[in-house]
Amino acid sequence: MVGETIGSKLVSLGHEVMMGSRSNGNEKAVKWTKTAGSHASEGSFNDAARFGELIFNCTKGEHAIEALKMAGVLNLKGKIVVDVSNPLDFSKGMPPTLSICNDNSLAEEIQAAFPESQVVKTLNTLAAPIMVNPNSVNGGNHHIFLSGNDGQSKAAVKEILLSFGWKNDHIIDLGNISTARGTEQLLPLWVRLMGVFNTPMFQVQIVR
Amino acid sequence: MVGETIGSKLVSLGHEVMMGSRSNGNEKAVKWTKTAGSHASEGSFNDAARFGELIFNCTKGEHAIEALKMAGVLNLKGKIVVDVSNPLDFSKGMPPTLSICNDNSLAEEIQAAFPESQVVKTLNTLAAPIMVNPNSVNGGNHHIFLSGNDGQSKAAVKEILLSFGWKNDHIIDLGNISTARGTEQLLPLWVRLMGVFNTPMFQVQIVR
Repeated sequence: MVGETIGSKLVSLGHEVMMGSRSNGNEKAVKWTKTAGSHASEGSFNDAARFGELIFNCTKGEHAIEALKMAGVLNLKGKIVVDVSNPLDFSKGMPPTLSICNDNSLAEEIQAAFPESQVVKTLNTLAAPIMVNPNSVNGGNHHIFLSGNDGQSKAAVKEILLSFGWKNDHIIDLGNISTARGTEQLLPLWVRLMGVFNTPMFQVQIVR
Repeated sequence: MVGETIGSKLVSLGHEVMMGSRSNGNEKAVKWTKTAGSHASEGSFNDAARFGELIFNCTKGEHAIEALKMAGVLNLKGKIVVDVSNPLDFSKGMPPTLSICNDNSLAEEIQAAFPESQVVKTLNTLAAPIMVNPNSVNGGNHHIFLSGNDGQSKAAVKEILLSFGWKNDHIIDLGNISTARGTEQLLPLWVRLMGVFNTPMFQVQIVR
């Protein structure tokens, strides 16, 4: 769902987008290409990683590194990997715990597994519809966060966020990739707030 | 600092407040009583727990259970314990990690150690000056959270928060004491935001 939402938005902005799956011809991916338009295509994770100049990881956190390995270390080399995933562990029931947290993060694990890629963590703290339409909540007055080791890569991802409708001063650069510990650990509060509100259509605003 | 801030506010609202320390006559506590006025007193943790109808735990998270044990299980029996502490572990340097998290929380540990007390977790997600003066940030438009197993105890704590200046719809009841996992795990993001802003005078607002 996250991948389709982001993919469709990117296509609507004029980008060429290939949706990766375990194998090409994935039923959902094929269906997505038909709704998303002529700039949308689909293939294996490996196909998509070769195709893309910039990669969005929108897999479930528990499968993220496996999926990125299927995409291929060499195909991701020198590219930005935007990590939108969260290490949610539903195996012990609801609400989920985190499979990685506290002194580590999934983003750091991905960066360590793909040292020649530039991992930028963002968009992992909110529901998919808001990611690509920030104005849908509180007139766009709320925040997202960026974590990553490379300033240029974060700047490139910020450009994409601006094109999604995010305002410059609503994107908070937290620092290096280890700061993703902060945003990934926001999820335990997020899932409980979703329980209180009965909707994922809310956001965090930092006020001063 | 948190204890003094909350204690002074409670005194200013007409409550009798005893500040507990490891032993009575604590220099800082004595100094506080002199500034806080005639309704302020000090004593040992045990003295304070016997004195209080309602207890605020404003100790460092790593010492919280030890301090509450010094206060005395019997002295806390049947009373509300407002837990403002966080399980921050600074032993591995900055920023801190959490000594308890993910599938547990300090609030749950305290509730388990004091089963005949009613633990209510709140005020642990923001700087002390804002706790007692919510209007000091963004005109009071931001949120705090309540976690606890007993509805009546949460209602009593909410009354105190209202008397501190919090608005009714800015206090979000997350549910039972295990929901404190969510607010305690907000701290890793909070400390990084403090690093970005160079001030603790910010707050989280949930917008819809």
